[in-house]
Formats: sequence, structure tokens, C-alpha cells
Amino acid sequence: MALLDQIASPADLRALPAERLPELAAELREEIVATVAANGGHLASNLGVVELTIALLRVFDPPEDKVLFDVSHQSYAWKLLTGRRDRFRSLRRTGGLAGFQKRSESPCDAFGAGHAGTAVSAALGLAAARDRRGGREAVVAVVGDASAACGVSLEALNNVRETTSRLLVVLNDNEMSIGRPTGALSRAFGRMLASPGYNRWKARIEEYGVRRLRLGGLRAHYHALESRLKSLFVRRANTIFEQLGLRYVGPVDGHDIALLEGAFRALRDSPVPVLLHVRTRKGLGFAPAEADPEAWHSTGPFDPATGARKPVPEGSVAWSDAFGAALCEEAEKNGNVFALTAGMASGTGLSEYARRFPRRFRDVGICEEHQMTTAAGMAAGGLRPVVAVYSTFLQRSVDGVIHDAALQGLPVVLALDRAGAVPGDGATHHGVFDIALLRPVPGVAIAQPRTPADLRRLLRTALSLPYPVAIRYPRGAAPDDTAADRGELLPVGRAAELSRTGPAPSVAIWTLGPEDKWAAETAELLKAKGVDSVRVDARWAKPVDAELLRAQADAGVRAFLTFEDGVRTGGFGDAVREALADHPARPRVVAFGWPDAFVPHATNRADLLARFALRPEDAASAVLAALG
Amino acid sequence: MALLDQIASPADLRALPAERLPELAAELREEIVATVAANGGHLASNLGVVELTIALLRVFDPPEDKVLFDVSHQSYAWKLLTGRRDRFRSLRRTGGLAGFQKRSESPCDAFGAGHAGTAVSAALGLAAARDRRGGREAVVAVVGDASAACGVSLEALNNVRETTSRLLVVLNDNEMSIGRPTGALSRAFGRMLASPGYNRWKARIEEYGVRRLRLGGLRAHYHALESRLKSLFVRRANTIFEQLGLRYVGPVDGHDIALLEGAFRALRDSPVPVLLHVRTRKGLGFAPAEADPEAWHSTGPFDPATGARKPVPEGSVAWSDAFGAALCEEAEKNGNVFALTAGMASGTGLSEYARRFPRRFRDVGICEEHQMTTAAGMAAGGLRPVVAVYSTFLQRSVDGVIHDAALQGLPVVLALDRAGAVPGDGATHHGVFDIALLRPVPGVAIAQPRTPADLRRLLRTALSLPYPVAIRYPRGAAPDDTAADRGELLPVGRAAELSRTGPAPSVAIWTLGPEDKWAAETAELLKAKGVDSVRVDARWAKPVDAELLRAQADAGVRAFLTFEDGVRTGGFGDAVREALADHPARPRVVAFGWPDAFVPHATNRADLLARFALRPEDAASAVLAALG
Repeated sequence: MALLDQIASPADLRALPAERLPELAAELREEIVATVAANGGHLASNLGVVELTIALLRVFDPPEDKVLFDVSHQSYAWKLLTGRRDRFRSLRRTGGLAGFQKRSESPCDAFGAGHAGTAVSAALGLAAARDRRGGREAVVAVVGDASAACGVSLEALNNVRETTSRLLVVLNDNEMSIGRPTGALSRAFGRMLASPGYNRWKARIEEYGVRRLRLGGLRAHYHALESRLKSLFVRRANTIFEQLGLRYVGPVDGHDIALLEGAFRALRDSPVPVLLHVRTRKGLGFAPAEADPEAWHSTGPFDPATGARKPVPEGSVAWSDAFGAALCEEAEKNGNVFALTAGMASGTGLSEYARRFPRRFRDVGICEEHQMTTAAGMAAGGLRPVVAVYSTFLQRSVDGVIHDAALQGLPVVLALDRAGAVPGDGATHHGVFDIALLRPVPGVAIAQPRTPADLRRLLRTALSLPYPVAIRYPRGAAPDDTAADRGELLPVGRAAELSRTGPAPSVAIWTLGPEDKWAAETAELLKAKGVDSVRVDARWAKPVDAELLRAQADAGVRAFLTFEDGVRTGGFGDAVREALADHPARPRVVAFGWPDAFVPHATNRADLLARFALRPEDAASAVLAALG
Repeated sequence: MALLDQIASPADLRALPAERLPELAAELREEIVATVAANGGHLASNLGVVELTIALLRVFDPPEDKVLFDVSHQSYAWKLLTGRRDRFRSLRRTGGLAGFQKRSESPCDAFGAGHAGTAVSAALGLAAARDRRGGREAVVAVVGDASAACGVSLEALNNVRETTSRLLVVLNDNEMSIGRPTGALSRAFGRMLASPGYNRWKARIEEYGVRRLRLGGLRAHYHALESRLKSLFVRRANTIFEQLGLRYVGPVDGHDIALLEGAFRALRDSPVPVLLHVRTRKGLGFAPAEADPEAWHSTGPFDPATGARKPVPEGSVAWSDAFGAALCEEAEKNGNVFALTAGMASGTGLSEYARRFPRRFRDVGICEEHQMTTAAGMAAGGLRPVVAVYSTFLQRSVDGVIHDAALQGLPVVLALDRAGAVPGDGATHHGVFDIALLRPVPGVAIAQPRTPADLRRLLRTALSLPYPVAIRYPRGAAPDDTAADRGELLPVGRAAELSRTGPAPSVAIWTLGPEDKWAAETAELLKAKGVDSVRVDARWAKPVDAELLRAQADAGVRAFLTFEDGVRTGGFGDAVREALADHPARPRVVAFGWPDAFVPHATNRADLLARFALRPEDAASAVLAALG
């Protein structure tokens, strides 16, 4: 890392002779691969933007200039080159660097993001603030081709011209989002690239622009060069972006640093908003990721030499895969089952389903709003749509759940993957809000399976009900008890007692899903203090089993402990509290869940539980205090 | 109403000779104006689509064919012609017809909507269901030019080609949304209309198509005509819709029934998705609405002869106007204040502000997602953005609040208009979810003013805080106590005691905002039963004043009654319950608010309170029961 170690700031990067940059790019790739191999993280996208990031930082000067990466999981090279090289190995670890741009981490990160599509919108806000102030800084949004088709992104693109005359949008076109490209916009990109103009273009730019840049006499000839480059670059392509009022420039090779630098210098002070179309290759420089960028979009630790990843433990199954398999089974029995994903076919475990039922599968691209509303339309048409989405991205579809599905009683099944804490990814990705956001919506049921067999039962049950049902399950794997499923339906709103440590428990521990293990530990600790408890798998966060709760209170339970892998405010614990609000015995409810604070990233879940005092020992103490 | 009275179903309409249709259109307008004059409702948009609706129903045959009106507040003529003529005068009244398409009201309403932008997405769902089933019915989405620029609509348009080959999108272009047109798409429409092709187009269609249609020999020559019309209509215009993969046809005159009928017949079975661009004039046929369609978008009762509307009562001020005036005052003092609206400048009371501070005002169009995210960007750039939005439309921005503003601690002020029940508009428009959706979000404060002077104080306070603050206020007017404002700031999370009926009350009644009057009535009823109470204006739903709550419990309050104009589940009452959960006296919390059911439309709020047993007498009984 001879070069990388010398770069403490973007100024050092700019001082580097251009001919050393390919070497630097190689070092960046090496460091990124090594770190992700150790800590897990986003790989393919980061490897694709190494040269792009170098070129951005050769021309733009943060924190003065604002450079926003859309989704920003591709900001590893950015971090390495903006003063965070020495902490880079702490990426995604407790107390370490975040896996995304983060304002509180560095002044060079102008705007944080973990969800797709916000960069242009946020950049317009920064540009408006600059224009109001009369500032001169550049505002740059780097947007992937898939993010550009996201609703908020399209809304923003449609507002560019009315907001500012100075904005640079870099379209990072790698011809795939996380999965395959989707939608008409993708085809429009494809058409542009296929046009004979592209190669002619590239040749001309290199002839006129890059050779001269390489002579090093750039500063002296800046204005002459600039106007010449402009006349080359600024050619109006008849594209969708033109219709939206951006000047379209490109496409240019996203791995040619000098070419990119020339483009950025030429466009930096453009008097009209510009879209620079850059082509990159995901995974570049790491053979397994180049071969299968989707599989290497996000990864756990792996062997950097071979690309071998730690398999799911023997006898276990990933929740996503358990869902995918269960859905295949339901689809075999019921021709109306229809699965939708928003750019996450593989992540949500739908690859096998998509292969087997291609005509009952749709990847709508990163369009969570459309995903939900069109699913409601499908349900109105008699299909049984299943919306597979990460819990955190459901936040985009709240209105669709309320206004399109629930209000009309349309039976859309929500399969909420990555529900609960997602330690490595952190605040933008924790799936901790879904219960609190869905619980106030009338006519929606919310369930969480304890085991993969329960997931099958709940999915089957949800597909039999005439209203929307959300099934949430965490990231990771669980012991595979699929064989225990006998095709049962589960009664809505009915909890299940798991065990009791004595015949007349004074404490009931109600948990959702795999938190039963946490409950068991807590019960042990209480037992050690002479307090008996009964453990309940609540299974349904809505409707909650008020009957069992009240029966337990009748039978002498004086304290109810709840634990959910979600925010406490408005969550399952509140539902329990409400169910017991007018019980004559006035039992205590001690609600455990994530506090009223954004939960950061961490090496693992245990660190987060410790940080927020949510361990079994914390719960046992709180229950003992409540008992008085 | 000689003709209208004869039309009990679309079949009757189709049996009507074409030459009688203008007469029918006039009757429809008359009936719409009379009904809205009596009941209030949406006027300008309904008057604009009378001929379009007639033509749709002459060609398409619901409930077999599916016709979805985007937003669907323009479906009055649709209702009148699809078997609801006899109930039309009950529009927006308790138990009467809804002001929007509604599945439970008629099988002819294929998909309900009250929020903009969902029609294409839902239509694609219905089309997918049809294609899966091998059905032949038509699916038609009628979308306004402003709705088309909404994120979910753009996402859907980008997914049309991958979903179906049979979809008709009717772009109802009236060159204005609710307010003025916004964004690049609007300019694109403008360019099309300005093109010399338009008049040539229109002339040719009339020559070849309409004359022959008028001969009445349509059925016999159907196929010949169809192919000829197709070759005329189906001409690829180089527009944004082309890029999105829809065949663009138009523009055509949206008030020429025969022309529209011809177009619909020609396009009904198009083997590729089509966008038919129709030009209409909002308010057509009612002079005041033609002159100022924005003012007549949605209206209360008025005199149909003069257009005179009931003024706000002497000494009162509309909450929206109180907000607008307060914001003007803040903007005068602070050059960083910046107001955003999503197509609702007039509705949110910002007209005067927009006139006085045009450079610190932006109407982003119906783009609530972008509105929120770009506001966060502005805040990151040092501005003090104020997002003015109806509470119900905030449901579109939940992720922006969480992921863009709150997570980054960016001080965006949310001015939530129409918070609480909005009786006339009903289920899609009640602003009842905002507290429950925002309360789980860390780092967001939620307040509600009791009077216009408090609104000023809260807005000023919010603009002084370094994090997001939501201020909610209802539709309607309140006694104008603006002069009482002395420029104070209000302490965050501090409630105010209003009155007590005795020195040692056993009941505390906590309400938000103008519900203090409800509390006073309830206190009277309790007093009559010999129970003393203290009334508190909670002011902040988050953070709730836990200190005062606990002090009251310490002082002997045994029951806390809460009332909020929002859903009970996850709302303010839950916050009170949480604050008192571990109080040693174990006081009761009786939470009143909208139940876990969608609240329908009604003539007035009193009807809704009665229906759900939320009147002061219901509350008094519940409190007495809780006291035991």
C-alpha cells in the first residue's frame, strides 16, 4: 500500500502524478477486498467505482464541494481517500466506520444514505441552499442506473430545472442494479450504449481532450481546453434526460481516470444541469465478483484468495431461503400466487422461485411504492400477490399499505426480510420500524415465525386470509425444522405457550419469533432468583392474543415482560400494554425493544444488546424491580 | 334532468343517440354543480371530465372493463352514469356516496383512490391479473398531468412494458394540477401542444374518423374504421412516454365526445400499451371555476347562482391561513426559512407567502417523497426548510422523515395541515395516522397548537430547534387569538394545565390542540357525577410531559383520560400509558381516539364521534368505569 498510505486527504491525491493513479486504483481494490473479506460488506459496487472516485476527488474538493453517492454503499474508496484510511479496517465493526456515507463520520460526507434514490433529491436541496447563499461549490450526485428509476429519484430529476442551473448528476451505469436491470429506463440506457455514436465519441474525446490533459499543461490552458472539451462533451443526446431538462453527456468509460477527470473539469461549472453517463463494471478486479456481481453485491466474510464463503451451518437454513422454498410450495398448489420484488430477487430468497415460476414473478426494480400499489391491483384482480421486501425498505410503501391494500381489504402478503437489527449495515438498514408503522393501520395482521416451519405455516395462513398480512423474519439462518410442518394453518392472533419454570408463574415472558431463546435465558435468570415464569411465543404482533394475556393475569401473573426486535415505541410491547390496560389486577408490563434512538452499526447483535442494556440480565433486573 | 334520469346504467348511456350527448353533458354539469353547491366537494376537475367520462362509458363496459381514475376525486360523472344517480345528492354525507371511487360502493369502481399517482400502478396489477387469467377486458387508467409526475406513477410508467402489452393510459392534461404545473414533464406536455403537428392532427382525425362515426354506421364498418383510425392515431410522437415504452397518441380535444369515442374504440384492443393525451379544461361550464380553477378545486357549500361561498366566521381564522401568516412573519426575520409544498400552495395556506417570498418558496408538484428528501438536503445546506403538507399525504414521506431528516438530525419543520378527521373527504383523507407514524421515529418532536397564537409560538419554536419537528393542525377555522402572541418560544415537551374543577382532582384529561373543548365538556359531565378533574393541554405528543403526568399521579390522580384526533393505536394515548407504566400508584389510562378501523366520510365530525362512541358522554362513562 505504498501509495494509499501517503494519502491523508484529497489534497494528497491531487498532488499525485497522473501516471501513478492506476497503481493507486489497484491498491484501493486490494484494500477493499481485504477489508470486506474480513468484515463483510458491499463488494461489487465498490470495486466498480474506484477510478470514478479517484477522478471525482482529483477535481472536486470536499467538504467544500458536495459529492453524494446514491445508496452510498459504494463509498469505500471515497472513505479511503478522504482521511479515513487508518480506520478503514474497522469498517462495519462496533465503533468503526460505517458502510455508508455518514455526515457524523466525516465532513466530506455531505449527506448520508442507505436507501436508494435519494441523492438527486438531496443534492437539489444542497444546491438550493448554495444558490440562496450565492455559493460557488459544486454539487454532484452519483447515481446508479437502478437508483435513477426509483420514484423519489424520478421526482427529483423532474424538478432539477426548476431548482437550480448548477448540478452534476453522474449516472453510474453498470447495466445492473443489485439484480438484473428493470424497466424502460434501463432499455433506454441500453439503446444509447448500442448507438454507433458511442465509439466515435470516445475516440474524439480522447483525441482532443485527454492527450492534452496528459501533457500536464492543464492549468495554463484551462479555459481554452474547457471550452473545447465542452463543445465536445456537451452534445445533446436525445434521451429521457433531455426531456427532463438535463444536458446529457456521454457515455464515457468509467475506468479511464484521465477521461473522467477531463469530463469533470469541463462540466464542473456548466451553466446548465448536466447528466454525465459513465459506464462501469461491477466487481472489476476481483474475478469472482466480476463473474457474478449479484452474488457479490453484499457479502459476509470470505477467503480473498478463493472467494470461498462460510456456508450456512449444517442443519440450518437462511430465513430468506426458507421463505423462498415455502413460497415455491404455495405457488405449486395455487396458480394465483404471484411474487414481487423491488430489485432484490436474490436477497429476498426468490431466485429459485423466479426460475420455477417466471410468469408469476416480477422484479419491478427499486420501486417499493409501485411494488406495493401494483400488488394491491393484482389482489383486486384476483391474484394472491406476495411482496418480498426488506423491512427497512417497507418504509417507502407505507402509503401503499394504508391507502391501497388495507383500506380496500386487499389480501397482499408482505414478506418482510431483514426484520430486526442488521448489525453490519447499521442505522439505515435495521428493520426495526415495521411493527410500529404497521400496527396503527387498520385491517393488517403482523406475524413473526419462531422457526422455518412456522414461517411455512404463517405464509400458508396469510395466503388464506382476505386481508393484508405482514410476516417478518430476521437476517441470518435458523435450525431447519421444515420437516415438522404438516401443512397446518395457524389461528390468527393466537399465541403459544412454550414452557414454564413452575406451576404458578408470577412472570410471563412474551416474545416474537426467534427471541424465544432470549426469553429462555431470562427465565433461567429469574428462576435463579426464585421467580417462576411462563414463556410465550406471541407469534402475532397484531392482533395480539389478548385472551391469553388476560387469562395469565387472572391466573396470577403480576409482571409481563415483552421483547421484540424492533423499536419499543409503538411496538408489540405497547400492544400488550393496551390489552392489559383495564385488567383489574393491574399487572406491570415491562417492554423491551430498541430504544427511542437510532441504532448504529456493530460487529454483531450482542454488542448492540449490551450497548442498549437489552440483555437477558437487564430484563431480569427490570422484571424483579417491577415485581417490587 | 330529462336525460340523466333515464340512465340507470352504462347500457342506457350507450343506447342514447350521439346527438343527445351534449345535452346529457349539460345535465351532468348542472347536477354536479348543484350537489357540490349543497354538500361541498371537488368541482373544477369534475366539470373538466364530463365528456371524457361519457366517452369512456360509451366504449368501455364496467364492471367487466376496469377504468381507474387517478386520485378519483373527478369521478362524479362516473358515479352519475354507473347506477348511482339516485343517491348522488348524498355525496359526502354520512352514509351517502363517497367523493372518490370506492370498491365497496359499486362494482364499477375497480380500484379506490384518494391520493394521487396510484392509477397506473394499480391498473398494471389488474392487467397482470387479467393476462394471467387470459381475460379480454380493457384496463384504463385516467391520469392527470400532475399525477403523472408523482413518483409512484413514474415508477409504474417505467414498468408498463415489462408488465403487459394491453393498457390504456388516458393522460387528462388540463395544464394544471391543483396549483400551477410543475416540473420538466409539464414543459414536455407544453411543447407537444405547441407543436404544429397538433392542429394538423386534429383536422385529420376529424376528417377521417369523426365524420364517419357520426354517420352512425359504426358497427358495420367497425374493423375497417378501426384499422384506419389506428393508422391515424397510432403515430409515434417523440415524447417522454415513448422513451418509457408507451405508444403516444394525441393530443385530442377532451370535450369532443365523438372524437374521444373514436379514439377509445380504435385503441381499446391495441396490442401495445398506449398513452392517449387528452386536453380538457377544468371548471368548464361553471364560470367562476373556469376563471379560477385552483380556487374551485375543492370547495365547501356555495351559492350556485353567484359562486359566493360562506366566509370564515368573523373573528376566526382558518388554520391554514394562520400557518401561512405565521410563516411569513418568521421568513421576514430569518432569511433561511424556505417553504415547500407538493402541489398544494393554496390548500396549505402558502399563497401569500409564495407571493411575498418567491425565491424561498418551491412547489415541487405532487412529489411528497422528493419534497421531504430535498428539504433534508436544504437543511444540510443550512436552510430552515418548512414542509407544508396534508397529514394524509405525509404517509408518502415516511422514509424521508426517518432516513433523510431524523437519522441525520436535520431540522426540517413539518407543517401538517388537515390533521385529524376530514369528514367530507373520508377514509383516504383523514389525517389520523401522523402521530402514530411519527412517534416511533427517534429524534422527531410532534406538537399540536390549541389556538392560532399557539401555532405561531410552536412554529417559531420549531424553527429554533436543531432537529425535525412536526406541527399538526386540523382543517377548518379557530377563533383568532393571534394578537395574544408575544413572540415567545414554547419549552419542548412541556404541557399546560388549563383548569380544574376542584382542588384535588382524581381525573386528569389530557388532550392535544383544540380538543380542549371536548375535554371541558367531559369535565362538566364528570363534575355532575361528583368527580373532579384537571384539564391539560398536552401540546406535545412527543416528547410527552412525563414529569407532569407523574406529578399528577403522585398528587392523587387515579385515572388519566386522553383524547386525540388520530388513531388510538400507537398514538398519544400510548405515550401517556408508557410514561405512567411504572408509576407506583398504577393509575388507569383511558385512551380515546379513532379506533382500529378505517373511518368513513360523514356530513360532519359529530356524526363520526357518535358512530365510534367518542363523545364526551362516552368518555365520562369510561372514566367512571375505570375509577371503579
